Amino acid sequence: MIEQTNLEFRTRGRGTTDITADVQRVITESGIKKGICTVFLQHTSASLILCENADRDVRIDLEMLLSRLAPDNDPAYIHDTEGPDDMAAHARSILTSNSLSIPVTDGQLALGTWQGVYLYEHRHAGHVRSVVLTVYW
Amino acid sequence: MIEQTNLEFRTRGRGTTDITADVQRVITESGIKKGICTVFLQHTSASLILCENADRDVRIDLEMLLSRLAPDNDPAYIHDTEGPDDMAAHARSILTSNSLSIPVTDGQLALGTWQGVYLYEHRHAGHVRSVVLTVYW
Amino acid sequence: MIEQTNLEFRTRGRGTTDITADVQRVITESGIKKGICTVFLQHTSASLILCENADRDVRIDLEMLLSRLAPDNDPAYIHDTEGPDDMAAHARSILTSNSLSIPVTDGQLALGTWQGVYLYEHRHAGHVRSVVLTVYW
Repeated sequence: MIEQTNLEFRTRGRGTTDITADVQRVITESGIKKGICTVFLQHTSASLILCENADRDVRIDLEMLLSRLAPDNDPAYIHDTEGPDDMAAHARSILTSNSLSIPVTDGQLALGTWQGVYLYEHRHAGHVRSVVLTVYW
Repeated sequence: MIEQTNLEFRTRGRGTTDITADVQRVITESGIKKGICTVFLQHTSASLILCENADRDVRIDLEMLLSRLAPDNDPAYIHDTEGPDDMAAHARSILTSNSLSIPVTDGQLALGTWQGVYLYEHRHAGHVRSVVLTVYW
Repeated sequence: MIEQTNLEFRTRGRGTTDITADVQRVITESGIKKGICTVFLQHTSASLILCENADRDVRIDLEMLLSRLAPDNDPAYIHDTEGPDDMAAHARSILTSNSLSIPVTDGQLALGTWQGVYLYEHRHAGHVRSVVLTVYW
Protein backbone atom coordinates (compact mmCIF):
# COMPACT_ATOMS: atom_id res chain seq x y z
CA MET A 1 0.00 0.00 0.00
CA ILE A 2 1.26 3.43 -0.87
CA GLU A 3 -0.32 6.84 -0.49
CA GLN A 4 0.91 10.24 -1.53
CA THR A 5 -0.20 13.63 -0.28
CA ASN A 6 0.99 17.13 -1.09
CA LEU A 7 1.16 19.69 1.70
CA GLU A 8 1.85 23.40 1.38
CA PHE A 9 3.29 25.63 4.04
CA ARG A 10 3.50 29.42 3.94
CA THR A 11 6.69 30.48 5.71
CA ARG A 12 7.33 33.90 7.17
CA GLY A 13 10.97 34.15 6.24
CA ARG A 14 14.07 32.54 7.68
CA GLY A 15 13.31 30.23 10.56
CA THR A 16 11.74 26.93 11.49
CA THR A 17 8.13 25.70 11.45
CA ASP A 18 7.16 22.56 13.37
CA ILE A 19 5.26 20.38 10.87
CA THR A 20 5.14 17.21 13.00
CA ALA A 21 1.39 17.45 13.61
CA ASP A 22 0.70 18.04 9.90
CA VAL A 23 2.66 14.92 8.97
CA GLN A 24 1.00 12.88 11.74
CA ARG A 25 -2.46 13.96 10.52
CA VAL A 26 -1.78 12.48 7.07
CA ILE A 27 -0.56 9.25 8.68
CA THR A 28 -3.62 9.01 10.88
CA GLU A 29 -5.96 9.60 7.93
CA SER A 30 -4.19 6.95 5.84
CA GLY A 31 -4.95 4.27 8.43
CA ILE A 32 -1.36 2.98 8.24
CA LYS A 33 -0.24 1.11 11.35
CA LYS A 34 3.35 0.08 10.57
CA GLY A 35 5.51 1.36 7.74
CA ILE A 36 7.52 4.33 6.56
CA CYS A 37 6.67 7.95 5.89
CA THR A 38 8.96 9.79 3.49
CA VAL A 39 8.81 13.58 3.80
CA PHE A 40 10.24 15.29 0.73
CA LEU A 41 10.69 19.04 0.23
CA GLN A 42 10.57 20.27 -3.38
CA HIS A 43 12.89 23.25 -2.89
CA THR A 44 16.60 24.01 -2.77
CA SER A 45 16.58 27.05 -0.51
CA ALA A 46 14.68 25.54 2.41
CA SER A 47 15.12 22.21 4.16
CA LEU A 48 13.77 19.61 6.57
CA ILE A 49 15.38 18.83 9.90
CA LEU A 50 14.74 16.56 12.85
CA CYS A 51 15.39 18.82 15.84
CA GLU A 52 14.97 18.96 19.60
CA ASN A 53 11.44 20.24 20.19
CA ALA A 54 11.47 21.30 23.83
CA ASP A 55 13.57 24.46 23.88
CA ARG A 56 13.32 26.96 21.04
CA ASP A 57 16.79 28.25 21.92
CA VAL A 58 18.15 25.17 20.14
CA ARG A 59 16.81 26.54 16.85
CA ILE A 60 18.14 30.01 17.62
CA ASP A 61 21.62 28.60 18.21
CA LEU A 62 21.34 26.41 15.13
CA GLU A 63 20.55 29.49 13.07
CA MET A 64 23.65 31.20 14.48
CA LEU A 65 25.85 28.23 13.56
CA LEU A 66 24.43 27.93 10.04
CA SER A 67 25.00 31.65 9.54
CA ARG A 68 28.67 31.03 10.23
CA LEU A 69 28.95 27.99 7.97
CA ALA A 70 27.08 29.55 5.04
CA PRO A 71 26.93 33.30 5.64
CA ASP A 72 24.67 35.67 3.77
CA ASN A 73 26.34 38.10 1.42
CA ASP A 74 29.72 36.39 1.40
CA PRO A 75 32.06 38.36 -0.88
CA ALA A 76 33.21 35.10 -2.48
CA TYR A 77 29.74 34.21 -3.81
CA ILE A 78 29.17 34.42 -7.56
CA HIS A 79 25.50 33.43 -7.39
CA ASP A 80 23.42 36.28 -5.96
CA THR A 81 20.60 36.48 -8.51
CA GLU A 82 17.91 36.69 -5.86
CA GLY A 83 19.87 38.64 -3.29
CA PRO A 84 22.52 38.24 -0.59
CA ASP A 85 20.71 35.29 1.06
CA ASP A 86 20.28 33.31 -2.19
CA MET A 87 23.47 31.23 -2.18
CA ALA A 88 23.52 30.90 1.61
CA ALA A 89 20.04 29.36 1.40
CA HIS A 90 21.12 26.76 -1.18
CA ALA A 91 24.15 25.79 0.90
CA ARG A 92 22.13 25.50 4.14
CA SER A 93 19.66 23.30 2.32
CA ILE A 94 22.42 20.92 1.21
CA LEU A 95 24.15 20.88 4.63
CA THR A 96 20.89 19.83 6.27
CA SER A 97 18.33 17.70 4.36
CA ASN A 98 15.44 17.71 1.89
CA SER A 99 14.16 14.16 2.43
CA LEU A 100 13.42 12.36 5.69
CA SER A 101 12.33 8.72 6.00
CA ILE A 102 10.59 8.21 9.33
CA PRO A 103 9.22 4.90 10.62
CA VAL A 104 5.57 4.62 11.59
CA THR A 105 4.68 2.31 14.49
CA ASP A 106 1.17 1.70 15.84
CA GLY A 107 -0.12 4.48 13.60
CA GLN A 108 2.30 7.06 15.01
CA LEU A 109 5.51 8.62 13.69
CA ALA A 110 8.18 6.69 15.62
CA LEU A 111 10.00 9.83 16.71
CA GLY A 112 12.00 10.06 19.90
CA THR A 113 10.49 11.96 22.81
CA TRP A 114 12.31 15.18 21.94
CA GLN A 115 12.28 14.92 18.14
CA GLY A 116 10.18 17.21 15.98
CA VAL A 117 10.00 17.52 12.20
CA TYR A 118 10.76 21.07 11.12
CA LEU A 119 10.54 22.91 7.85
CA TYR A 120 13.47 25.32 7.78
CA GLU A 121 13.03 28.39 5.57
CA HIS A 122 16.46 29.74 4.61
CA ARG A 123 15.35 32.79 2.58
CA HIS A 124 14.63 36.03 4.43
CA ALA A 125 11.35 36.48 2.58
CA GLY A 126 8.39 34.20 3.21
CA HIS A 127 7.64 31.54 0.59
CA VAL A 128 5.07 28.87 -0.11
CA ARG A 129 6.87 25.53 0.30
CA SER A 130 5.63 22.20 -1.06
CA VAL A 131 6.16 18.93 0.73
CA VAL A 132 5.36 15.49 -0.74
CA LEU A 133 4.43 12.90 1.87
CA THR A 134 4.63 9.26 0.79
CA VAL A 135 3.35 6.65 3.23
CA TYR A 136 3.86 2.97 2.51
CA TRP A 137 3.15 -0.20 4.41
CA MET B 1 6.32 -7.23 3.43
CA ILE B 2 7.50 -4.93 6.17
CA GLU B 3 9.24 -5.66 9.44
CA GLN B 4 10.26 -3.38 12.25
CA THR B 5 12.81 -3.98 14.98
CA ASN B 6 14.06 -1.78 17.78
CA LEU B 7 17.73 -1.92 18.71
CA GLU B 8 19.41 -0.28 21.68
CA PHE B 9 23.04 0.70 21.92
CA ARG B 10 24.87 1.83 25.02
CA THR B 11 27.46 4.43 24.00
CA ARG B 12 30.52 5.37 26.02
CA GLY B 13 30.48 9.08 25.27
CA ARG B 14 31.44 11.04 22.20
CA GLY B 15 32.61 8.84 19.37
CA THR B 16 31.47 6.32 16.80
CA THR B 17 30.21 2.73 17.11
CA ASP B 18 30.12 0.47 14.07
CA ILE B 19 26.59 -0.98 13.99
CA THR B 20 26.80 -2.56 10.51
CA ALA B 21 26.79 -6.13 11.84
CA ASP B 22 23.81 -5.41 14.11
CA VAL B 23 21.81 -4.07 11.17
CA GLN B 24 22.88 -6.99 8.94
CA ARG B 25 21.78 -9.48 11.61
CA VAL B 26 18.22 -8.10 11.55
CA ILE B 27 18.20 -8.27 7.76
CA THR B 28 19.42 -11.86 7.76
CA GLU B 29 16.81 -12.89 10.34
CA SER B 30 14.02 -11.23 8.34
CA GLY B 31 14.76 -13.41 5.33
CA ILE B 32 14.56 -10.37 3.01
CA LYS B 33 16.46 -10.81 -0.25
CA LYS B 34 15.90 -7.52 -2.11
CA GLY B 35 14.52 -4.32 -0.66
CA ILE B 36 15.34 -1.38 1.56
CA CYS B 37 16.43 -1.07 5.17
CA THR B 38 15.68 2.24 6.86
CA VAL B 39 17.81 2.91 9.93
CA PHE B 40 16.30 5.63 12.11
CA LEU B 41 17.80 7.12 15.27
CA GLN B 42 15.33 8.49 17.81
CA HIS B 43 17.62 11.16 19.25
CA THR B 44 18.72 14.71 18.48
CA SER B 45 22.17 14.68 20.08
CA ALA B 46 23.57 11.63 18.32
CA SER B 47 23.47 10.66 14.65
CA LEU B 48 24.00 8.02 11.99
CA ILE B 49 26.73 8.22 9.37
CA LEU B 50 28.01 6.12 6.51
CA CYS B 51 31.77 6.30 6.91
CA GLU B 52 34.96 4.72 5.64
CA ASN B 53 35.50 1.61 7.75
CA ALA B 54 39.12 0.70 7.11
CA ASP B 55 41.12 3.36 8.95
CA ARG B 56 39.91 4.66 12.30
CA ASP B 57 41.88 7.86 11.74
CA VAL B 58 39.06 8.94 9.41
CA ARG B 59 36.71 9.12 12.41
CA ILE B 60 39.34 10.92 14.49
CA ASP B 61 39.73 13.56 11.79
CA LEU B 62 35.97 13.79 11.33
CA GLU B 63 35.62 14.48 15.05
CA MET B 64 38.21 17.25 14.74
CA LEU B 65 36.31 18.86 11.85
CA LEU B 66 32.92 18.65 13.57
CA SER B 67 34.45 20.21 16.67
CA ARG B 68 35.35 23.20 14.53
CA LEU B 69 31.97 23.45 12.81
CA ALA B 70 29.94 23.08 16.01
CA PRO B 71 32.28 23.65 18.94
CA ASP B 72 31.47 22.76 22.52
CA ASN B 73 30.99 25.65 24.91
CA ASP B 74 30.69 28.32 22.23
CA PRO B 75 30.13 31.69 23.96
CA ALA B 76 27.34 32.47 21.48
CA TYR B 77 25.16 29.51 22.56
CA ILE B 78 21.99 30.26 24.49
CA HIS B 79 21.01 26.61 24.96
CA ASP B 80 23.29 24.95 27.51
CA THR B 81 20.74 23.26 29.77
CA GLU B 82 22.62 19.98 29.83
CA GLY B 83 26.13 21.40 29.67
CA PRO B 84 28.68 22.85 27.25
CA ASP B 85 28.30 19.94 24.78
CA ASP B 86 24.48 20.13 24.63
CA MET B 87 24.00 22.54 21.72
CA ALA B 88 27.07 21.27 19.86
CA ALA B 89 25.53 17.79 19.95
CA HIS B 90 22.22 18.99 18.45
CA ALA B 91 24.03 20.84 15.66
CA ARG B 92 26.31 17.87 14.84
CA SER B 93 23.23 15.66 14.66
CA ILE B 94 21.58 17.98 12.11
CA LEU B 95 24.77 18.43 10.03
CA THR B 96 25.09 14.67 9.70
CA SER B 97 21.96 12.44 9.63
CA ASN B 98 19.37 10.59 11.72
CA SER B 99 17.84 8.41 9.02
CA LEU B 100 19.60 6.23 6.44
CA SER B 101 17.86 4.26 3.69
CA ILE B 102 20.15 1.46 2.53
CA PRO B 103 19.35 -1.01 -0.26
CA VAL B 104 19.42 -4.73 0.43
CA THR B 105 20.58 -7.05 -2.37
CA ASP B 106 20.81 -10.86 -2.14
CA GLY B 107 20.07 -10.63 1.57
CA GLN B 108 22.99 -8.25 2.27
CA LEU B 109 23.20 -4.51 2.92
CA ALA B 110 24.32 -3.17 -0.46
CA LEU B 111 27.12 -1.09 1.05
CA GLY B 112 30.28 -0.24 -0.82
CA THR B 113 33.45 -2.11 0.11
CA TRP B 114 34.61 0.63 2.48
CA GLN B 115 31.26 1.76 3.85
CA GLY B 116 30.20 1.09 7.42
CA VAL B 117 27.10 2.23 9.31
CA TYR B 118 28.09 4.14 12.43
CA LEU B 119 26.17 5.44 15.40
CA TYR B 120 27.82 8.72 16.38
CA GLU B 121 27.39 9.77 20.00
CA HIS B 122 27.83 13.55 20.26
CA ARG B 123 27.45 13.93 24.04
CA HIS B 124 30.51 13.45 26.25
CA ALA B 125 28.58 11.16 28.58
CA GLY B 126 27.47 7.71 27.52
CA HIS B 127 23.79 7.23 26.65
CA VAL B 128 21.43 4.46 25.65
CA ARG B 129 20.43 5.17 22.05
CA SER B 130 17.40 3.68 20.30
CA VAL B 131 17.38 2.79 16.63
CA VAL B 132 14.29 1.70 14.68
CA LEU B 133 15.06 -0.63 11.77
CA THR B 134 12.37 -0.97 9.12
CA VAL B 135 12.94 -3.56 6.41
CA TYR B 136 10.57 -3.76 3.43
CA TRP B 137 10.52 -5.78 0.28
CA MET C 1 6.72 -4.25 -6.31
CA ILE C 2 10.41 -3.51 -5.98
CA GLU C 3 13.11 -3.17 -8.59
CA GLN C 4 16.80 -2.59 -8.22
CA THR C 5 19.27 -1.30 -10.78
CA ASN C 6 22.96 -0.53 -10.56
CA LEU C 7 24.31 2.49 -12.42
CA GLU C 8 27.93 3.46 -12.90
CA PHE C 9 29.25 6.93 -13.50
CA ARG C 10 32.77 7.86 -14.50
CA THR C 11 33.64 11.19 -12.88
CA ARG C 12 36.35 13.54 -14.05
CA GLY C 13 37.55 14.64 -10.64
CA ARG C 14 36.08 17.01 -8.10
CA GLY C 15 32.77 18.48 -9.18
CA THR C 16 29.14 17.66 -9.82
CA THR C 17 27.42 15.53 -12.47
CA ASP C 18 23.68 15.90 -13.07
CA ILE C 19 22.28 12.34 -12.95
CA THR C 20 18.57 13.30 -12.89
CA ALA C 21 17.92 12.00 -16.41
CA ASP C 22 19.70 8.70 -15.66
CA VAL C 23 17.53 8.15 -12.59
CA GLN C 24 14.37 9.15 -14.50
CA ARG C 25 15.21 6.68 -17.27
CA VAL C 26 15.24 3.77 -14.80
CA ILE C 27 11.91 4.94 -13.37
CA THR C 28 10.35 5.19 -16.81
CA GLU C 29 11.58 1.72 -17.77
CA SER C 30 10.22 0.21 -14.53
CA GLY C 31 6.70 1.37 -15.37
CA ILE C 32 6.21 2.67 -11.81
CA LYS C 33 3.53 5.35 -11.52
CA LYS C 34 3.50 6.26 -7.81
CA GLY C 35 6.09 5.26 -5.24
CA ILE C 36 9.59 6.01 -4.00
CA CYS C 37 12.99 5.90 -5.64
CA THR C 38 15.94 5.48 -3.30
CA VAL C 39 19.25 6.58 -4.79
CA PHE C 40 22.19 5.14 -2.87
CA LEU C 41 25.88 5.86 -3.49
CA GLN C 42 28.31 3.09 -2.49
CA HIS C 43 31.25 5.37 -1.70
CA THR C 44 32.55 7.49 1.16
CA SER C 45 34.49 10.10 -0.78
CA ALA C 46 31.71 11.22 -3.11
CA SER C 47 28.09 12.10 -2.38
CA LEU C 48 24.60 12.80 -3.67
CA ILE C 49 22.95 16.20 -3.43
CA LEU C 50 19.68 17.80 -4.45
CA CYS C 51 20.77 21.15 -5.86
CA GLU C 52 19.44 24.10 -7.82
CA ASN C 53 19.79 23.13 -11.47
CA ALA C 54 19.41 26.46 -13.30
CA ASP C 55 22.64 28.31 -12.57
CA ARG C 56 25.92 26.43 -12.44
CA ASP C 57 27.37 29.19 -10.26
CA VAL C 58 25.46 27.64 -7.36
CA ARG C 59 27.68 24.56 -7.59
CA ILE C 60 30.80 26.71 -7.92
CA ASP C 61 29.89 28.59 -4.74
CA LEU C 62 28.97 25.35 -2.98
CA GLU C 63 32.42 24.00 -3.82
CA MET C 64 33.98 27.12 -2.33
CA LEU C 65 32.00 26.73 0.90
CA LEU C 66 32.77 23.01 1.26
CA SER C 67 36.45 23.78 0.71
CA ARG C 68 36.26 26.01 3.75
CA LEU C 69 34.36 23.54 5.92
CA ALA C 70 36.53 20.56 5.03
CA PRO C 71 39.72 21.87 3.44
CA ASP C 72 42.18 19.77 1.51
CA ASN C 73 45.57 19.23 3.11
CA ASP C 74 44.58 20.48 6.55
CA PRO C 75 47.64 20.21 8.84
CA ALA C 76 45.41 18.66 11.54
CA TYR C 77 44.49 15.62 9.44
CA ILE C 78 45.97 12.27 10.43
CA HIS C 79 44.36 10.34 7.56
CA ASP C 80 46.09 11.18 4.28
CA THR C 81 46.76 7.71 2.88
CA GLU C 82 45.49 8.63 -0.57
CA GLY C 83 46.67 12.22 -0.60
CA PRO C 84 45.78 15.69 0.66
CA ASP C 85 42.15 15.44 -0.60
CA ASP C 86 41.47 12.04 1.02
CA MET C 87 40.11 13.13 4.41
CA ALA C 88 38.43 16.23 2.99
CA ALA C 89 36.51 13.97 0.61
CA HIS C 90 35.27 11.73 3.45
CA ALA C 91 34.12 14.73 5.49
CA ARG C 92 32.33 16.35 2.52
CA SER C 93 30.55 13.08 1.89
CA ILE C 94 29.26 12.96 5.46
CA LEU C 95 28.27 16.66 5.54
CA THR C 96 26.16 16.15 2.41
CA SER C 97 24.44 12.78 1.74
CA ASN C 98 24.87 9.28 0.30
CA SER C 99 21.21 8.23 0.15
CA LEU C 100 18.24 10.16 -1.26
CA SER C 101 14.63 8.99 -1.13
CA ILE C 102 12.64 10.77 -3.82
CA PRO C 103 8.91 10.36 -4.43
CA VAL C 104 7.65 9.29 -7.84
CA THR C 105 4.33 10.72 -9.04
CA ASP C 106 2.67 9.93 -12.38
CA GLY C 107 5.81 8.10 -13.46
CA GLN C 108 8.08 11.11 -12.83
CA LEU C 109 10.53 11.99 -10.08
CA ALA C 110 8.51 14.46 -7.96
CA LEU C 111 11.30 17.02 -7.88
CA GLY C 112 10.68 20.73 -7.55
CA THR C 113 11.09 22.87 -10.66
CA TRP C 114 14.66 23.81 -9.79
CA GLN C 115 15.81 20.57 -8.19
CA GLY C 116 18.34 18.29 -9.82
CA VAL C 117 19.99 15.12 -8.53
CA TYR C 118 23.76 15.45 -8.60
CA LEU C 119 26.60 13.06 -8.03
CA TYR C 120 29.33 15.04 -6.30
CA GLU C 121 32.87 13.72 -6.76
CA HIS C 122 35.05 14.95 -3.89
CA ARG C 123 38.39 13.47 -4.98
CA HIS C 124 40.56 15.42 -7.42
CA ALA C 125 41.07 12.35 -9.58
CA GLY C 126 38.24 10.85 -11.60
CA HIS C 127 36.66 7.66 -10.30
CA VAL C 128 34.02 5.15 -11.33
CA ARG C 129 31.14 5.57 -8.88
CA SER C 130 28.38 3.00 -8.29
CA VAL C 131 24.83 3.99 -7.52
CA VAL C 132 22.09 1.53 -6.47
CA LEU C 133 18.60 2.62 -7.49
CA THR C 134 15.71 0.94 -5.69
CA VAL C 135 12.23 1.71 -6.94
CA TYR C 136 9.20 0.47 -5.00
CA TRP C 137 5.48 0.96 -5.36
